[in-house]
Formats: sequence, structure tokens, C-alpha cells
Amino acid sequence: MLRSVPYSEAQRLWTRPERVVLAVSNGPEGVPDIIALGWHMRTSGIPPMLAISVGKTKFSHNLISETREFVFSVPGEDLWRQVAFCGTHSGRDVDKFKETGLTPVPAKRVKPPLIGECIVNIECRVAGELDTGDHTIFVGEVLECWVGDEGKRNLLLVGKEPGYMLLGEERGYRFGVVR
Amino acid sequence: MLRSVPYSEAQRLWTRPERVVLAVSNGPEGVPDIIALGWHMRTSGIPPMLAISVGKTKFSHNLISETREFVFSVPGEDLWRQVAFCGTHSGRDVDKFKETGLTPVPAKRVKPPLIGECIVNIECRVAGELDTGDHTIFVGEVLECWVGDEGKRNLLLVGKEPGYMLLGEERGYRFGVVR
Repeated sequence: MLRSVPYSEAQRLWTRPERVVLAVSNGPEGVPDIIALGWHMRTSGIPPMLAISVGKTKFSHNLISETREFVFSVPGEDLWRQVAFCGTHSGRDVDKFKETGLTPVPAKRVKPPLIGECIVNIECRVAGELDTGDHTIFVGEVLECWVGDEGKRNLLLVGKEPGYMLLGEERGYRFGVVR
Repeated sequence: MLRSVPYSEAQRLWTRPERVVLAVSNGPEGVPDIIALGWHMRTSGIPPMLAISVGKTKFSHNLISETREFVFSVPGEDLWRQVAFCGTHSGRDVDKFKETGLTPVPAKRVKPPLIGECIVNIECRVAGELDTGDHTIFVGEVLECWVGDEGKRNLLLVGKEPGYMLLGEERGYRFGVVR
């Protein structure tokens, strides 16, 4: 039996676990910004492309829109505090590499740096964008891929179901991994 | 220490678990098609919108492109066989509701039906689309939401890490849930 509900209630039932990623873009005077993103997907196999949804009010939004490039970085379980920091602070106010201690590593084909501690870093050039309400979808064509130390579990945003190990919580976001 | 790798290798490390969903679109003569999708994301909070990436060669691609509407349906653990069937057959050849036994339930504001057995059904009107290599991103504005029986776990595409219960495998796709 189906029951009509508000979106907020439906959303609660299908959005966890959500893999959380970072996107690095290039700031003015070369200070890069890092944004935390739960809303992303693959969107082409040949050529490989990724899509990210970035809130229009975010500092990174304008950087990506203007520079047309970003690094898509996948954090492991060891980085939940850094990801939470990036997700709750603005690059208008803080230098996120400096504050989190994450290591910027020069990329090969784009200006924003890779994140040395991430499981995967993917250099992307913006191949398309689409306005969607309060976010913009940026489609990144994959230029170069890098992997780091293996064996770390992907960092997830999790609900309250069993089966996850909760690593920490920040402003209602629950960071965890599959047990 | 970061190591440069081909995309196929990087992809293996960051794409699991992936929540798998279904999209229902309206076929010619009212026979609806159901496509299985691993590539989807939320993309706006106000107004609520979802994005799905649909392969350009898929039967559903043209249906959604022409009719500008779809139902986004979230399967639980009990539907892995039906989802595998939808993901490995074409609506050009088979009536997927008939072959899977899934129950079409009339929607309120769009022509394609809801799926009676799904955890969540969301009626969407296409608010934008973007060409991305071999797929098209369709952005759906949320019109109506429905929930079904609670307590089912979300169906996932999983890797080979521990922590998941494997429900079944079909053409290399591993369907499972968090234990």
C-alpha cells in the first residue's frame, strides 16, 4: 500500500548510505578551496565523465564556474574530520588545506592540486553545466587519475541502520563506514 | 604516494556501494518501461530535484526525452532479481512489468506508473537535460512522493569488501545490502 508523503520524508528513506567526496578548485591568488559533496554521480563511460552538484551560494561554485576545472577526490575513513571541516566552513573565510592539514600535491593537467591523503584523485575539465534550482551540475571530463595507499574504506554519510561503524557526527551529518 | 592509473582502475576504488534505483517511463501505446540506474544524485533542495544519467542507446532514453516525465523508484532488498532483469533486458523486446511481476500503480501527476513494491516512488517532470558523452542527464523536478512498506533495506551494488550480504550476481553486477 503506497502512501503519499512530503519529499522530506521520502528523502530520508533512499539517500543513505551516500558516498561523500571532495572537489578541489582553484582560488584567487592560487589558494585552492575544498568542498565536501554528497551529490555526485558518474555520467559517461566513453569518454569518462563525472557530475557534481554544487550549491550556488558556495565559494567553490564560482571558482569552478570561472576556471572550468576541478579535482574530484575520494576520502577514506581516516579523513572524516577533515571532510566535516570542509563541509562546514567556507573558503571565503579559511584556507582549507592549511586548516585541515591535508597535503596539496601538484596535478598534471589542471591548476587545482590533488589531495595527498585521498584514496583516489581525478583531474577534471568542465565539459558542461546545467542550472538546477539551488545547485548547478558541473560535468567533468576525466583527464588524469591517481590512486593513493590502498586498503582504506570509503567514507560514507550513513543513517541510523545497523551495519555501519559511526566515526563521528557534525551538524547532523553522520560519517561512517560499512563494518 | 600517489600513482597515476587508468580510469578503469580508479573507478574500481570509489564507486561502491552504489544505490541502485529504477526509473519508469511511458512507452508507446501506454506500455511503460523500467530502467535500472546506478548513476543518479540529488541536485536541488529548493525546489527538490533529482538527476539521472541514462545511456543514449537505451529504450527509456527516448521515452523520457519525448514525454518529459518519469517515476524515480527505489527498490528494497526483496527486488534484486527484478532489478537485475530490468538492467539486462530492453523495453524494445519485453514488457518489464509483465515479465518481472512488479505492480504498476497509477501515479497522480504523471503518466508512467509507480511500482507498488518499491520503498519510495517519486513522480518527476523533466526540468532540464544535458548531453554528457554516451549518456544524457535528465533533471527531474519532484512533483509527488510515495512510500511503501517500511523496514526494507535499500538495494545496493556492492564490491567485494566484507560488511555486505550478497543477494545475487548478474552479468558482473553484485546486488547486496549492508549486513
